[in-house]
Amino acid sequence: MQKIDSDYWLIEQDRGNLTVSYRLKEIIFSEKSTFQHVMIADSYDFGRMLILDGVVQTTALDGHIYNEMISHVPLFLHKNPEKVLIIGGGDCGAAKEVTKHSVKEVHMVEIDELVVTACSKLLPEVSGNLSDPRVSFIFADGIEFAKNAELEYDVIIVDSSDPEGPAEQLFEIEFYQHLKNALKDDGILVCQSQSPLFQPNITRKTFNSFQELFAYADVYYAVVPTYPGGFWSFTIGSKSPFAISNDPLPDLGTKYFNKEIMINSFQLPEFLSEKIKY
Amino acid sequence: MQKIDSDYWLIEQDRGNLTVSYRLKEIIFSEKSTFQHVMIADSYDFGRMLILDGVVQTTALDGHIYNEMISHVPLFLHKNPEKVLIIGGGDCGAAKEVTKHSVKEVHMVEIDELVVTACSKLLPEVSGNLSDPRVSFIFADGIEFAKNAELEYDVIIVDSSDPEGPAEQLFEIEFYQHLKNALKDDGILVCQSQSPLFQPNITRKTFNSFQELFAYADVYYAVVPTYPGGFWSFTIGSKSPFAISNDPLPDLGTKYFNKEIMINSFQLPEFLSEKIKY
Repeated sequence: MQKIDSDYWLIEQDRGNLTVSYRLKEIIFSEKSTFQHVMIADSYDFGRMLILDGVVQTTALDGHIYNEMISHVPLFLHKNPEKVLIIGGGDCGAAKEVTKHSVKEVHMVEIDELVVTACSKLLPEVSGNLSDPRVSFIFADGIEFAKNAELEYDVIIVDSSDPEGPAEQLFEIEFYQHLKNALKDDGILVCQSQSPLFQPNITRKTFNSFQELFAYADVYYAVVPTYPGGFWSFTIGSKSPFAISNDPLPDLGTKYFNKEIMINSFQLPEFLSEKIKY
Repeated sequence: MQKIDSDYWLIEQDRGNLTVSYRLKEIIFSEKSTFQHVMIADSYDFGRMLILDGVVQTTALDGHIYNEMISHVPLFLHKNPEKVLIIGGGDCGAAKEVTKHSVKEVHMVEIDELVVTACSKLLPEVSGNLSDPRVSFIFADGIEFAKNAELEYDVIIVDSSDPEGPAEQLFEIEFYQHLKNALKDDGILVCQSQSPLFQPNITRKTFNSFQELFAYADVYYAVVPTYPGGFWSFTIGSKSPFAISNDPLPDLGTKYFNKEIMINSFQLPEFLSEKIKY
């Protein structure tokens, strides 16, 4: 945080050679948990935002883009998703989207309870008023949790922060192997896999891991204005073939996601798929 | 420009509530023209970039996205583009793309000769080695030039900088009225119309002007990582109907543009089209 003239600016420092600074109206919440520094601030251009260890994670302006894409794509690719596991996703945005489907049970495994309580209360644009009896919150280490599940889930969503510090292991093949075991035979695993533009190594590594583990794997993308460069990638895998249904999709009140966007999201621009797939 | 520790950073200041800073390797060129300060610098993440009055205009990393989309969309929507006018576009990237088509004549009207000479020499990733006999450079005010042309062009491309200072009039309906007169009856006009996310008023105003002037008008978008928020809009209009051909398009060696991207680019995400069209 820095005061420039009479304004407060959040200056992101860890993105390497590109720094984005946001003009802030107000700090709403600022506290240190066991795991990280948790802040919610109100910004001029993006509205309220969740900031972990100084890095913007999601905002009122565009949090829906990321959360809709990480949730509805795998759920609509699955024929009948009933039981869903979310690893991470403490802002509750993915869980909110998942509950728009007729699922029966959602396990949300988030390591940091403070993120969930702060976002539920102070970031309603992203978290919604999530109080759905189908959602169980489990405040635990997703890596440990994954080891003990077997043939249980229809869809698993890994909604992690950047692969630094505690989240680093969420990008390792060992972790995906455990998640594969936790999936039913026709289950689908999806994880966020960073910027294909600025961290193509991570997107490529994730895609390669999925190709090694799963018979069917692919990468899709969304455009998230909050993230430098805009382009953001998701990697998806399954033991069984998956395809977009020919039927129209039900309207779930989404603001970015729709069937056309879903189809298009698997067609990465050439200059990006070059970096990842070849 | 600011020195932080031992690094040089270009800190964009005029984007309002969001500031993007680029770590620089080297300033390649820095000179004041009659119109603006012209700089070419080498950056870590984006390679060489053109910076006008402190604002990044185009970069080696992603200049092709913008230039391919502003050029190939109108040229492929026209049945037989022979004579093309480009207003602005001093980085020569749009002209480079236009010459990939079998056009006969390209008039490039750029107010600032210094931008053209600097980019031709020092920003080859964007400008290419543009020395095509079909391209005439006219160093003049595009607004004055537009007033004196009539029923002359198949395609007109307005590749302007932000609507501040000299470029402001390039966003006025009077200017578009002159360009409409400069088009042949089946001619197509396209102009960049800013970020639909952060300057939706400008995109909407441009689209409204086109709707008022032309029987057929639409908005399409591209994702340009250099521009804050990623999403960038283009507005297109014609006196005659235009549609994407069913035939496959010839491969022009593009890195972002292809037929699928062209079709998809007219389907703005709902949360953006809401800001512009309704």
